[in-house]
Amino acid sequence: MASLLIKNGRVVTADSDSVCDVLIDGEIIVAIGRNLTESADQVIDAGSKLVLPGGIDPHVHLDMPFMGTFSSDTHETGTRAALHGGTTTVIDFVLQKQGHSLREALTEWQGRATGTAVGDYSFHMAVTDFNEQTRAEIAEMVAEGITSFKAFMAYKGALMIDDAQLVGLMQEVKKHGALVTVHATNGDMIDTLVAQHRAQGKLSPLYHYLSQPEVTEAEASGRFTDIANYTGVNAYIVHLTCEGALNQVREATRRNQRVFVETCIQYLLLDASLYEQDFEGAKYVMSPPLRQKKDQETLWAGINQGLVQVVGTDHCPFLWEQKQLGKHDFSKIPNGHPAIEHRMELLFSEGVSKGRISLQRFVAVTATNAAKIFGMFPRKGTISIGADADLVIIDPQRQHTISAATHHMNVDYSAYEGWELTGKIETVVLRGQVAIREGQAQVEKGYGQFIRRGPTIF
Amino acid sequence: MASLLIKNGRVVTADSDSVCDVLIDGEIIVAIGRNLTESADQVIDAGSKLVLPGGIDPHVHLDMPFMGTFSSDTHETGTRAALHGGTTTVIDFVLQKQGHSLREALTEWQGRATGTAVGDYSFHMAVTDFNEQTRAEIAEMVAEGITSFKAFMAYKGALMIDDAQLVGLMQEVKKHGALVTVHATNGDMIDTLVAQHRAQGKLSPLYHYLSQPEVTEAEASGRFTDIANYTGVNAYIVHLTCEGALNQVREATRRNQRVFVETCIQYLLLDASLYEQDFEGAKYVMSPPLRQKKDQETLWAGINQGLVQVVGTDHCPFLWEQKQLGKHDFSKIPNGHPAIEHRMELLFSEGVSKGRISLQRFVAVTATNAAKIFGMFPRKGTISIGADADLVIIDPQRQHTISAATHHMNVDYSAYEGWELTGKIETVVLRGQVAIREGQAQVEKGYGQFIRRGPTIF
Amino acid sequence: MASLLIKNGRVVTADSDSVCDVLIDGEIIVAIGRNLTESADQVIDAGSKLVLPGGIDPHVHLDMPFMGTFSSDTHETGTRAALHGGTTTVIDFVLQKQGHSLREALTEWQGRATGTAVGDYSFHMAVTDFNEQTRAEIAEMVAEGITSFKAFMAYKGALMIDDAQLVGLMQEVKKHGALVTVHATNGDMIDTLVAQHRAQGKLSPLYHYLSQPEVTEAEASGRFTDIANYTGVNAYIVHLTCEGALNQVREATRRNQRVFVETCIQYLLLDASLYEQDFEGAKYVMSPPLRQKKDQETLWAGINQGLVQVVGTDHCPFLWEQKQLGKHDFSKIPNGHPAIEHRMELLFSEGVSKGRISLQRFVAVTATNAAKIFGMFPRKGTISIGADADLVIIDPQRQHTISAATHHMNVDYSAYEGWELTGKIETVVLRGQVAIREGQAQVEKGYGQFIRRGPTIF
Amino acid sequence: MASLLIKNGRVVTADSDSVCDVLIDGEIIVAIGRNLTESADQVIDAGSKLVLPGGIDPHVHLDMPFMGTFSSDTHETGTRAALHGGTTTVIDFVLQKQGHSLREALTEWQGRATGTAVGDYSFHMAVTDFNEQTRAEIAEMVAEGITSFKAFMAYKGALMIDDAQLVGLMQEVKKHGALVTVHATNGDMIDTLVAQHRAQGKLSPLYHYLSQPEVTEAEASGRFTDIANYTGVNAYIVHLTCEGALNQVREATRRNQRVFVETCIQYLLLDASLYEQDFEGAKYVMSPPLRQKKDQETLWAGINQGLVQVVGTDHCPFLWEQKQLGKHDFSKIPNGHPAIEHRMELLFSEGVSKGRISLQRFVAVTATNAAKIFGMFPRKGTISIGADADLVIIDPQRQHTISAATHHMNVDYSAYEGWELTGKIETVVLRGQVAIREGQAQVEKGYGQFIRRGPTIF
Repeated sequence: MASLLIKNGRVVTADSDSVCDVLIDGEIIVAIGRNLTESADQVIDAGSKLVLPGGIDPHVHLDMPFMGTFSSDTHETGTRAALHGGTTTVIDFVLQKQGHSLREALTEWQGRATGTAVGDYSFHMAVTDFNEQTRAEIAEMVAEGITSFKAFMAYKGALMIDDAQLVGLMQEVKKHGALVTVHATNGDMIDTLVAQHRAQGKLSPLYHYLSQPEVTEAEASGRFTDIANYTGVNAYIVHLTCEGALNQVREATRRNQRVFVETCIQYLLLDASLYEQDFEGAKYVMSPPLRQKKDQETLWAGINQGLVQVVGTDHCPFLWEQKQLGKHDFSKIPNGHPAIEHRMELLFSEGVSKGRISLQRFVAVTATNAAKIFGMFPRKGTISIGADADLVIIDPQRQHTISAATHHMNVDYSAYEGWELTGKIETVVLRGQVAIREGQAQVEKGYGQFIRRGPTIF
Repeated sequence: MASLLIKNGRVVTADSDSVCDVLIDGEIIVAIGRNLTESADQVIDAGSKLVLPGGIDPHVHLDMPFMGTFSSDTHETGTRAALHGGTTTVIDFVLQKQGHSLREALTEWQGRATGTAVGDYSFHMAVTDFNEQTRAEIAEMVAEGITSFKAFMAYKGALMIDDAQLVGLMQEVKKHGALVTVHATNGDMIDTLVAQHRAQGKLSPLYHYLSQPEVTEAEASGRFTDIANYTGVNAYIVHLTCEGALNQVREATRRNQRVFVETCIQYLLLDASLYEQDFEGAKYVMSPPLRQKKDQETLWAGINQGLVQVVGTDHCPFLWEQKQLGKHDFSKIPNGHPAIEHRMELLFSEGVSKGRISLQRFVAVTATNAAKIFGMFPRKGTISIGADADLVIIDPQRQHTISAATHHMNVDYSAYEGWELTGKIETVVLRGQVAIREGQAQVEKGYGQFIRRGPTIF
Repeated sequence: MASLLIKNGRVVTADSDSVCDVLIDGEIIVAIGRNLTESADQVIDAGSKLVLPGGIDPHVHLDMPFMGTFSSDTHETGTRAALHGGTTTVIDFVLQKQGHSLREALTEWQGRATGTAVGDYSFHMAVTDFNEQTRAEIAEMVAEGITSFKAFMAYKGALMIDDAQLVGLMQEVKKHGALVTVHATNGDMIDTLVAQHRAQGKLSPLYHYLSQPEVTEAEASGRFTDIANYTGVNAYIVHLTCEGALNQVREATRRNQRVFVETCIQYLLLDASLYEQDFEGAKYVMSPPLRQKKDQETLWAGINQGLVQVVGTDHCPFLWEQKQLGKHDFSKIPNGHPAIEHRMELLFSEGVSKGRISLQRFVAVTATNAAKIFGMFPRKGTISIGADADLVIIDPQRQHTISAATHHMNVDYSAYEGWELTGKIETVVLRGQVAIREGQAQVEKGYGQFIRRGPTIF
Repeated sequence: MASLLIKNGRVVTADSDSVCDVLIDGEIIVAIGRNLTESADQVIDAGSKLVLPGGIDPHVHLDMPFMGTFSSDTHETGTRAALHGGTTTVIDFVLQKQGHSLREALTEWQGRATGTAVGDYSFHMAVTDFNEQTRAEIAEMVAEGITSFKAFMAYKGALMIDDAQLVGLMQEVKKHGALVTVHATNGDMIDTLVAQHRAQGKLSPLYHYLSQPEVTEAEASGRFTDIANYTGVNAYIVHLTCEGALNQVREATRRNQRVFVETCIQYLLLDASLYEQDFEGAKYVMSPPLRQKKDQETLWAGINQGLVQVVGTDHCPFLWEQKQLGKHDFSKIPNGHPAIEHRMELLFSEGVSKGRISLQRFVAVTATNAAKIFGMFPRKGTISIGADADLVIIDPQRQHTISAATHHMNVDYSAYEGWELTGKIETVVLRGQVAIREGQAQVEKGYGQFIRRGPTIF
């Protein structure tokens, strides 16, 4: 097996910060040290650069059938774009089809991902129909290395399960020491508001936002947290966006409960004023929608309070043409937003460079915490001996500009067009291979492997 | 300089877990890897053992003048006992004398510690008299590497500052990017209750407990947190013991505030029922006192919620003879309890072995978080290249029993007499030297160094 | 019209307390004063007695089809028993049948109540199927004097509406300035727990209790409160039983919301230990179930805090024979408990005589507040000029014992058998007629009138 | 004794609302009824007018030595102005002088008030120096009919007591079933901020406001509430102004505590933008200062939630000349604001006429609740038989304008100059005497009586 030596970088993890060398043998880190004198097949000089763990984005939707179309990044284009942005592992959502088995869905997703992904990937299983058959499949999925099960509290008739199913799912998942994650939003309320807006001829993207007011998310976050506390299951809220929802989690700490929280990069950086620009707002039609400035402040604080452990993306891109499906009705705009490629650089620039979070916190929320929560630790998410050699090399001073013209995602606009960032990811290593070098992908379709996951260690 | 190789241990930090070797050159870790083939002056086989960062106890009182006597461990005996228990660095409190300068106090403490300490140490500065002179000294102390300033909200006339002084102290400390820590308890209320109990002839140790009800701590924790929020200073509550106080911190998260919290090992493991046994209860006379089972549950939960970042000891031992000063009046019992030696083993056994916390969390709360909060990171608190080679080697299965007959603290009783623990610290390395080997100290008085500290990185 | 003079009583309302006379002309109070010298057709000497407003019980279920049977008190027996206990007005629940109109239900209930009731009554409308037809009927019901609309968050398939319907109902009711009341409990969770207990052969009444844990009520109370806040409707939670639920209301005060709260007499006085006695526990099978001592304390406190405004009964009696329907399966035990007759005397004895609440508070929570909230004020619920002459005369010192052998409800057991109370209702006046005199009813079937209600004044 | 008949008014109390007559014999209400045909010495036709209980202002400072001067209304001018505005009873604060006895202070205040007051008055006792002598005087004061004891948490060296004294005071007051009231604000913090602003040359009235930020009040409200909960005493917060402070009270409801809350009319209607107008802001220099719009919303909501029971004034007027004492230094501006005369009309116009509160709530917060809390019920605060005939007759439609040119307070400016109000108090009756008729006082200096008070009934 080939060896790779990264020399003289400032190697930073969630709990270390040293100028040193990292030696990789095959796919694995085998030594970290000063002046490692080993001869290596390949040597990269990382002097004056940062060497960080490869990012983990635990919330992506690749090649996903949704609202009559498919999200526009395949496992190939999506994971390649992720690699460009320093994210070496993603966790994609398998969606059970109501009336069908988990296994069927898994097989379908495996069919799309296997041999296609460029970067590493794993699967969450979204349980959209919990019944006695599904219950029996939970153990089977855990045996497959799928240890997180998602519940949707919205999208009735398609993805949503009711509270009766949620209790049952939690009880079963708990038996297996696995995790329940949730899209926490009151689907019934939203459906009503959507219908009312449509009936009133309020059809622009702004009404997508107004159909999902903060209370819909806060309420459901509280409900999920209450039920999780009753069942005792490990619980995780995906894409939490707002003060009302985070306050439910804070309140739950008073009864000695711990609930994991993920926010997404867009909720930290963008706000609902973007919906005011006619159909351009369709670019930001996602669920939950963007929120207010006060919510951004809450999320940044939540990260530093240790109450928000993960920053993901909910990457679910659609071409501008696909967004046109809702030209005349916001409720038909495919929900989702492209972010898989720029999560790390955006958070670095807006978080670390601007002094909002420490470098250690940056590593924790982009990689380590997700690895721990989702059972990939210590193989993924950190720089340590025996771990997969998933690394990013960043020039912390280098300036660059985001643009759809230069990004690698299969989508023809950028939510951050023209943003100038400080800190550029120059080299990305995945399992010992240089995957990205100065903007050029070095690994092929199919290089990405499926990552089997175990229990939460946190 | 001599080198030391620790082979084949399971090396665990707050964000890693690998079987590998650790190579030390002089005082510093220079390589971590598989099969490090370097020849070394000394080799330790850590096969089937855990190798963890040396512990940091940020709350000790050594050789401290208090209540007419001195705490019974000197910097020599105290830090040696700490080393026996895997704590390689302590932070001791310098107490300004009211009417005198910070510098005078520092000089006095330096006189006692320099050349005496066996393990590494640093100082907090307890500001007991904040005025224009003191204000001017804050910058000076920061320049000395003392970046944390403690306020007492109790012990009026001796240590307590009022809220006016507290505001001023916070404002000044904030200017220098340093930290304010607090003994948060309503001294006035306690003084009243003590006086009432004494007037009623209620003089046994139980009344020590009853003179410091939960509200005294909860109230002051809220007050401190409120004022800290107003000033914007970095804030840290020492020895938090109870639900009421932690709930103040939880509540403060709602206004996007972060307050660091330390509890101590005794508050996790012992409870107030110990005060019911006549004068034996004097062994547990400390401030705040032990609390209830419900409070223990809250503290364990707080650790896992990330809201309690540090487990210290408030080590402040007194000989049984010294405790007799309060034989006939609880208010004269010197306050304090010996714990510096067993913090790590107790927390390992009761926390890790019993499944309450993960190994990573154990490292975080015994070492890494304190290093980060108190500005010693990444030099201390983790295992990484360039860091001080402060390590403990634990046999996680080995059983042992705590007893005053075998402990190394200079105190003639143990608060945990007869406790049987799982997990024994066998070897301790401090700055590259084997400091403890199988219960024998290998380093001398004076080996300990003063650690200059910088700002919080968290 | 005949006149009635009540002399020398201690006349107490929520805001007055005087020894004086009350003069009634026909149905109406026409004068209150000292030494009213008018000649009257009838004179009652109330010397050394209390004269209070007739009670209002806003939560009763008379002659109600439920779980395959009917609650055992008709409008005749139920209102007569109420009168014996000093409750002169009740509000009964009309239940829409899913798929049918509100009007149909109202007609059915009118059929049972009109000409039957002995005491005065009004109707809430329980909306169990909210749709465009129902929406149109809301205004019609308000025009009928039915200004409160109840939603069930439990009993799926029979009474429950989902959150989508709840939003719509609230929006419509708000338009008409009326009130939404709720049975707040998570029906889905309960259904799951019931099914699980049954599947496990756990069939005794205890499992009724264990199928409705505190969280089911707390969660739904929070959800209802959140949605009510969003819509801005006047909101009222019926039969609130527990700390978790009241804390949701308390929390909501922080966002400047007001939610009215009713508890019932049984939740103040009885607790869940009663379920431990085999099938005897069936007597207490009601929804929500009895709770813990801590919950009783919360409810008493809530009354004194002004956050619990009303004490009702949820009177829904079943004969012991009817309860046998669930002999072998708790889920088949008709839910409900007889209390209409003793609410006032129980609360007087346990609340006023034992010093937990003031006499003014007693009047407020048994009569005045319900009158205000439910739009019957100032006609009902107080003693004032022009108000209906609904009065009770109590001997506050007189002791008596509750027993099924002597009560007037059509049910063959008492939930309070053998309780000894201090304070006996001796005389009850309804619209100027002596309705009860020393345990004998003086008015006939059909004397009770339907009370049209207006908006909340509070 | 003379009799007075008020005919045909709409008589409204906190729990009634009737068109009827009120008959007064001497000082006492003796009958309320329809068409009371008694001949009376005097008859007033109140047709189309409201007849309400005379107001009680439980927070006034008359002829009070403060900051080197005296508040400008004597007991004569202050109570006369109060009567003009419908407030028939006030409670004035006796201030113990530190180092002196309560009795001395009472004697001094009695000297100023006795024979001087035009309207009825009572006294609170402000305990500014709690010690063993003071403790012994508490019972004595209760025997004098002074059942409320005020603590200042600010004005160190003049009025402030520390928490040790506060505990002792609460314990003693509780023994006598009396009430502790508090000026809840962190005096130490304020003193520091004042000193800092002065040192920085920030001397305009705006800095009065900025020296008392919300946290100073919120913190102290929490501290007071915590200590009150520990001691179990009946507790009352005077002049609560802000969300932070009310949230402390709301939070305390969760531990089943009840704390009474008073706000003042200015905090409902005026806001801190008034401090931005140079020295004109001195008119609004009071402690606590005016707050933000969000705080006004909280206070209105608190009233409707039942958590704010009383609206007072903290009337403490100073002539414009007196305010000049602080022309060059905000800290020398005598603190206080004239409001005694317009509290009722302002609250009627802004509260009732604008639909924010019900008429019943208006009566409760201006009269009945204060009477109950402060032990004057049922003699004062309501319209009932045997009660003092303290009544106001309001024309609810009549418009009028507030101006210093027409008001009766001894102060040469109005805080509400030019405000146009809906609802005019035309006639005021105090103990059966017409005290005000169409803007003319009908009773003389000395007509006012001292009202002995008993325990809280609520």
